[in-house]
Amino acid sequence: MAAPLLHIVLHEPEIPNNTGNIGRTAIVLGCALHLIEPLGFDVSEKACRRAGLDYWPRLGVTQHANWDAFLARQSPPRLWLFSAHASRSVFDADLRRGDYLVFGKETAGLPPALLDRYAARCLRFPMVHGERGLNLATAVCAAAYEGVRQMAARAELTIRDGLIEP
Amino acid sequence: MAAPLLHIVLHEPEIPNNTGNIGRTAIVLGCALHLIEPLGFDVSEKACRRAGLDYWPRLGVTQHANWDAFLARQSPPRLWLFSAHASRSVFDADLRRGDYLVFGKETAGLPPALLDRYAARCLRFPMVHGERGLNLATAVCAAAYEGVRQMAARAELTIRDGLIEP
Repeated sequence: MAAPLLHIVLHEPEIPNNTGNIGRTAIVLGCALHLIEPLGFDVSEKACRRAGLDYWPRLGVTQHANWDAFLARQSPPRLWLFSAHASRSVFDADLRRGDYLVFGKETAGLPPALLDRYAARCLRFPMVHGERGLNLATAVCAAAYEGVRQMAARAELTIRDGLIEP
Repeated sequence: MAAPLLHIVLHEPEIPNNTGNIGRTAIVLGCALHLIEPLGFDVSEKACRRAGLDYWPRLGVTQHANWDAFLARQSPPRLWLFSAHASRSVFDADLRRGDYLVFGKETAGLPPALLDRYAARCLRFPMVHGERGLNLATAVCAAAYEGVRQMAARAELTIRDGLIEP
């Protein structure tokens, strides 16, 4: 497998259908997927496979016991943490090849301690006032495509006839 | 309700969870949602409501009996049709306020007759070679955010502290 364009990191995801769907986005975009435990489901669950985990064997997916184990194993050069509490728009970020995009659990997002620790690396999706927020899988897809768009705009990758060239 | 930033149009959607999820994206982004019949479900279904249709009353959703009824009622000034068979990347499009983004059914996409009729208006999401495609709800979210990003870049809307201003 070529080096992943981006790494998608799900911190303690709860809903198998979302993780399956995110696996589908990852493979379509040449991204790696990381799952940080505990997970709210078993990755062999039917709902998970139905939404995309039939791709699982071809997908570069790695499970990590916790955040520190993730850091120790991956040594991520650049992290971005997505949170509805951030003020910086994802469109103002500088997403580069090999960056790690980190998303929290569906019900609660990322823990405050992590957001505090990486305060300069927090991003959000702009929304109209007063709304609750996006579904996790749709937010991940929009973030990954924003990364691809930025890389293409900087000629870090080539899109030809609708295909992303390695 | 203010004029929608974009109109999201689902042509004969089949899976209630996807339409519910797309309703959630639409309301978070100040977009209108159009459903062109026949639908593969009843919008009162539990799976549909759980994924987002508890927003339904606040969402500007309109059902249309067929494509021609949609055209007659909306007179859409600018349409964009999304298809895995298109060659033009969504990033090369010029998405403007009030545009209509049209997506086909989950299993088959938009019918060939429609794609032929609007051949100059067809867009795709770039993907790596050999992969099947995105989940409908994730593709819609990525498309809507690309529209918001382009509008913000052209100063057609303002994003302040992570909020889209009307």
